[in-house]
Amino acid sequence: MRHVVVAVTARPSYSRIKTALVALRARPDVRLSIVACASAVVTRFGRVADLIRADGFEVAAEVSSVVEEDSLSSSALSTGVLLTQLSGIFAGLKPDIVVTIADRHETLATAIAASYQNIPLCHIQGGEVSGSIDDKVRNAVTQLADIHCVATPQAAWNVSQARGYYENPLGPGVYRTGCPSIDLAAEARRLGAFPHSRVMVLQHPVTTQTAQAADQMRATVEALKGMDTLYFWPGEDAGGQAMSKVLRLAGIKPVRNISPLNFPRTLMGASCLVGNSSVGIRECSFLGVPVVNVGTRQEGRERAANVVDVPHDVDAIRQETTRLCVMMKDGPFPSSHLYGDGHAGERIAAILSGRAIEAVA
Amino acid sequence: MRHVVVAVTARPSYSRIKTALVALRARPDVRLSIVACASAVVTRFGRVADLIRADGFEVAAEVSSVVEEDSLSSSALSTGVLLTQLSGIFAGLKPDIVVTIADRHETLATAIAASYQNIPLCHIQGGEVSGSIDDKVRNAVTQLADIHCVATPQAAWNVSQARGYYENPLGPGVYRTGCPSIDLAAEARRLGAFPHSRVMVLQHPVTTQTAQAADQMRATVEALKGMDTLYFWPGEDAGGQAMSKVLRLAGIKPVRNISPLNFPRTLMGASCLVGNSSVGIRECSFLGVPVVNVGTRQEGRERAANVVDVPHDVDAIRQETTRLCVMMKDGPFPSSHLYGDGHAGERIAAILSGRAIEAVA
Amino acid sequence: MRHVVVAVTARPSYSRIKTALVALRARPDVRLSIVACASAVVTRFGRVADLIRADGFEVAAEVSSVVEEDSLSSSALSTGVLLTQLSGIFAGLKPDIVVTIADRHETLATAIAASYQNIPLCHIQGGEVSGSIDDKVRNAVTQLADIHCVATPQAAWNVSQARGYYENPLGPGVYRTGCPSIDLAAEARRLGAFPHSRVMVLQHPVTTQTAQAADQMRATVEALKGMDTLYFWPGEDAGGQAMSKVLRLAGIKPVRNISPLNFPRTLMGASCLVGNSSVGIRECSFLGVPVVNVGTRQEGRERAANVVDVPHDVDAIRQETTRLCVMMKDGPFPSSHLYGDGHAGERIAAILSGRAIEAVA
Amino acid sequence: MRHVVVAVTARPSYSRIKTALVALRARPDVRLSIVACASAVVTRFGRVADLIRADGFEVAAEVSSVVEEDSLSSSALSTGVLLTQLSGIFAGLKPDIVVTIADRHETLATAIAASYQNIPLCHIQGGEVSGSIDDKVRNAVTQLADIHCVATPQAAWNVSQARGYYENPLGPGVYRTGCPSIDLAAEARRLGAFPHSRVMVLQHPVTTQTAQAADQMRATVEALKGMDTLYFWPGEDAGGQAMSKVLRLAGIKPVRNISPLNFPRTLMGASCLVGNSSVGIRECSFLGVPVVNVGTRQEGRERAANVVDVPHDVDAIRQETTRLCVMMKDGPFPSSHLYGDGHAGERIAAILSGRAIEAVA
Repeated sequence: MRHVVVAVTARPSYSRIKTALVALRARPDVRLSIVACASAVVTRFGRVADLIRADGFEVAAEVSSVVEEDSLSSSALSTGVLLTQLSGIFAGLKPDIVVTIADRHETLATAIAASYQNIPLCHIQGGEVSGSIDDKVRNAVTQLADIHCVATPQAAWNVSQARGYYENPLGPGVYRTGCPSIDLAAEARRLGAFPHSRVMVLQHPVTTQTAQAADQMRATVEALKGMDTLYFWPGEDAGGQAMSKVLRLAGIKPVRNISPLNFPRTLMGASCLVGNSSVGIRECSFLGVPVVNVGTRQEGRERAANVVDVPHDVDAIRQETTRLCVMMKDGPFPSSHLYGDGHAGERIAAILSGRAIEAVA
Repeated sequence: MRHVVVAVTARPSYSRIKTALVALRARPDVRLSIVACASAVVTRFGRVADLIRADGFEVAAEVSSVVEEDSLSSSALSTGVLLTQLSGIFAGLKPDIVVTIADRHETLATAIAASYQNIPLCHIQGGEVSGSIDDKVRNAVTQLADIHCVATPQAAWNVSQARGYYENPLGPGVYRTGCPSIDLAAEARRLGAFPHSRVMVLQHPVTTQTAQAADQMRATVEALKGMDTLYFWPGEDAGGQAMSKVLRLAGIKPVRNISPLNFPRTLMGASCLVGNSSVGIRECSFLGVPVVNVGTRQEGRERAANVVDVPHDVDAIRQETTRLCVMMKDGPFPSSHLYGDGHAGERIAAILSGRAIEAVA
Repeated sequence: MRHVVVAVTARPSYSRIKTALVALRARPDVRLSIVACASAVVTRFGRVADLIRADGFEVAAEVSSVVEEDSLSSSALSTGVLLTQLSGIFAGLKPDIVVTIADRHETLATAIAASYQNIPLCHIQGGEVSGSIDDKVRNAVTQLADIHCVATPQAAWNVSQARGYYENPLGPGVYRTGCPSIDLAAEARRLGAFPHSRVMVLQHPVTTQTAQAADQMRATVEALKGMDTLYFWPGEDAGGQAMSKVLRLAGIKPVRNISPLNFPRTLMGASCLVGNSSVGIRECSFLGVPVVNVGTRQEGRERAANVVDVPHDVDAIRQETTRLCVMMKDGPFPSSHLYGDGHAGERIAAILSGRAIEAVA
Repeated sequence: MRHVVVAVTARPSYSRIKTALVALRARPDVRLSIVACASAVVTRFGRVADLIRADGFEVAAEVSSVVEEDSLSSSALSTGVLLTQLSGIFAGLKPDIVVTIADRHETLATAIAASYQNIPLCHIQGGEVSGSIDDKVRNAVTQLADIHCVATPQAAWNVSQARGYYENPLGPGVYRTGCPSIDLAAEARRLGAFPHSRVMVLQHPVTTQTAQAADQMRATVEALKGMDTLYFWPGEDAGGQAMSKVLRLAGIKPVRNISPLNFPRTLMGASCLVGNSSVGIRECSFLGVPVVNVGTRQEGRERAANVVDVPHDVDAIRQETTRLCVMMKDGPFPSSHLYGDGHAGERIAAILSGRAIEAVA
């Protein structure tokens, strides 16, 4: 019986691990404990902890740690508060392996709490490239992790080089599983789209450009004026509150709390996605939804043919959005398997319950 | 005027940065703030903060964070406590650059507190290889840092690869300065040895082998029985208290509080060094002092000709110690420049006060 | 030169200490350091730190500590985070005395950080009675404090008894200074009202009734429907976000960011105050503004003739509000000196800079 | 089924609650969870957590929080670290009541973590008087607690006055149960003494006299030179390490780890107790062991006839110790019931499982 502890720190992390959780729960040789922490227990960010329970999982512990202050130092402080809590929680749970997901600042707290106690650590979605502090966080977690479940061939190579396996495209402990978010997208495709033909907007603050956060949001709002839009709340990082204020002042009522499965179905029904979310690079490549990717946040990420890049420029955003909406009328773009084929969750569950861990423990 | 903040978390960190601090203090274009934290403010570990003041530096802030418990979870908890404090302290000091040293677990707190606030981070002594959690910590700090002052050619290559500059022996932001600990050794050599002809013992717990810590210390004590020895206290990591107890029960009174400059002079006077400290690999290679390196803690570190490796085996330790003590009677081994030539501090100060930072800020 | 450190944790705390700060700043024998912490550095609560600076004070340190989660455990966690920060900050500032204000949960962090380091502690506004956890907090701070600047005769008696000076109406260290918030009210009266004749609403969550917070706000909103109202945001305690949501759904746009001096001038221009703020009991008694005090939050507080108590009942709130608005047309109620005469700030500054502290240091 | 959570922060706290724990465990209507924290999980202080398990109890959680630094600020910081941990642990355990014991600085963390979450809090041993920061801590906990199980009539009166029940010798929620430490003493008396006729020494640092800690210990060591002594380690408060060093330098090997039951049996066998532990005031009054109480630490505590008070003066300590040792040859002093009759544990268990809690919940 292997005890797998998964730390979920935010809504997107849950989407990116959910099918692995379902596969782990189904295994008789695994005991699964989910720890919900950071923005996953905050009402303002949709309390993913409740969503996890609604999906039939137990939540072993809820851990508050988001220190409120719309500034850069709060990310560091929140990570410290989370680390002080998780070190005790992991000591109590005594996991055989801890799983951490992607690249938000809090994931480093999970990674330290596990690795400093000699608990094997599995990192989901290492080796990717984006345009901000997330890169540093993701690569630091890669260095602390023992098992790496990555999405793309380039990610596998990057992780292997960074871990010192020079010239080895797939070093020990590195597995190309694909990204579990594509599993949900695959299931959503089986169930079908929610057709609405609106322009969906997911734009987040860029941690190295917090002073421009409000201006960036204003450009998007201005560009899409007059179009039928569906906005989502910006994330909690520094700059997020300034962006939310721009939306409020513009009279826009953003959406929250779409379930992880309904989210890709809603994506499929959109005429276009605008913003800087990795969803555009990732899920939309599989679903064939066109994306106007704004600014530098996804810089360096591998792209399929569905993505067009534009700067934070009102005209450029408006023009490309209009053009892609027209193209979408002929149906979605071809599906790409760059980020996964829909079976990542099963592969990850097999790795976490198999001998891979014995090799690193 | 550039504001350089250096976080000193332990006695060996201070030794490894001292000549750079002296060079920084001498520059009119630099404001230097030293933050003493973790074991640097704990009496049981010799309160390096006081030593720093005795050397004529001001200490801008003392930060307590060592949570006492002889277990693995305390490293993670202590790092969390330090991170919660440093995030506020750096926000208050508003540095142009933060400097963190080597690979102790707390250095990751310094690295996160700086990098999450977009403060450029300089890491001293990245790219090396040792045999425990230190590797993970050091490599994670490398990922968070912007400027890397490394000691050896292999270290420069390792950092460059890990940062994604494939096939580049010296990526952007990577500088081969040598290790400042060799600067002190060079000065010590100018001043001359403290001759004592005893066997010096520096043996620390290995964080992945905490259960064996007491046995490992017992083997060394047994092997050196009857020789004229000079023991130092084991470090504060998990397992350290168990080792200290072995020493107490054996009636051994370890030494503490030798100043960073007197330490290499004492080394020069020894007939041999036994244990697993990096001092054996590093300072002793320059000084030509023979070293019986015990166990896996220095595994993977580049070595000069002065080092002999043995397992935690009573006979092997005794035999090699005896042999090297005999050789030492003919005088020290030849000096190696593998870890530095004695000018690292000046080079680091030049980098921290120069344009290198503008490139990353 | 006496070093006085004042910890301001929230907007109302600042109002209640401002005239003392002005008087302290004017003294040549005092060095004043203001530490802004908790909600005083959070944008969502109006960042009082900025207001303090706008009033010409320096802020010696900003300390983030509000952990976001709309639940009861976040008060305890936030207090813990603040305590970990303040212990180091006070150690660095080396104050001769620390001042803490009133009864919000974070004040206990200030009190512990000072008293555990043997730094004399002055508590402003002890000995009062209200209807929630605030009572416990206030009384616990009284036990940790050495000097007590209280408002009313009953408060002086309460503090003296609680400190063990049985039958002594004014024990050692207890001073009846009046409340500094009345000083501002006195100055506001000199400057004159901002006439607007609206019903002002200040209703906060009650920490022991968080589940009813939304219902309580709904009753008030319903009762005042059709009247000309001026709502303020509810406080950050557990339940506050639920109350804010009620206001948003009702299309009410609450006010924030009225300066401490303009606030009583605005009060003077109101036709009535509705809610459960201590402002109604305190400032309004001096200003003669009629108050409909709703629910139990001010239970046990001494009242002047301007206050009418009602339950969270739509009809009762509406009826009494209407009645008092009519009475107000004939001019304000008579001014009461129960909570102060307008000279509290000067008295407090004299105590903090005088010999009182030598007696307790 | 009532869920009672008891936070044990130190060895003496465990002794003072043990018989209540036994009585609670025996009740079918109670679920008992013990949380071991602060020095109770530190090896240097004897890891009471292990002792608790050896007594057949489960430990629901271990919580590290002792930040190492031999200074005053570490008490505040440690309390903050404990508070950040306990707030989450109590939120997870969902107790019907939390129990905190006596007056060590960490007890305030327990009290805040419970009371800020509206969890009823029971305080054991409120209302007593001693000579240091402990008084402030104890009285602050009294203000946060809902149920008070006190030892002496004076303590009951003190708690009642401090809680505002003027002239009431036993206010609501106040119960005179006696002190559970006397229960153990009573059981020890049934089992009989361990005769050894040595002078036992229990001397702790006084938090308001940390600079004198070493001198105070030196006076005692000097006074007892030549006598047959049995020393115990000083506590972990600021000053404790300095005292330990005095003992080490004097070649004294203090004892640790006597079980809570064997401890009073050892006391009974002593010819005299010297120091400033409350054990002298409390257990020894029941057992009739003579006590030389040194310095101010027990100032204000009610005493039976077995106690003689002396200053930190070599001659005074030596003279009184010699005198009492002679008197003890005629047998123990008469037993006093001032601090309890041996049935406190049962009474406390009855209160915690009974209707008392419904009244305050």
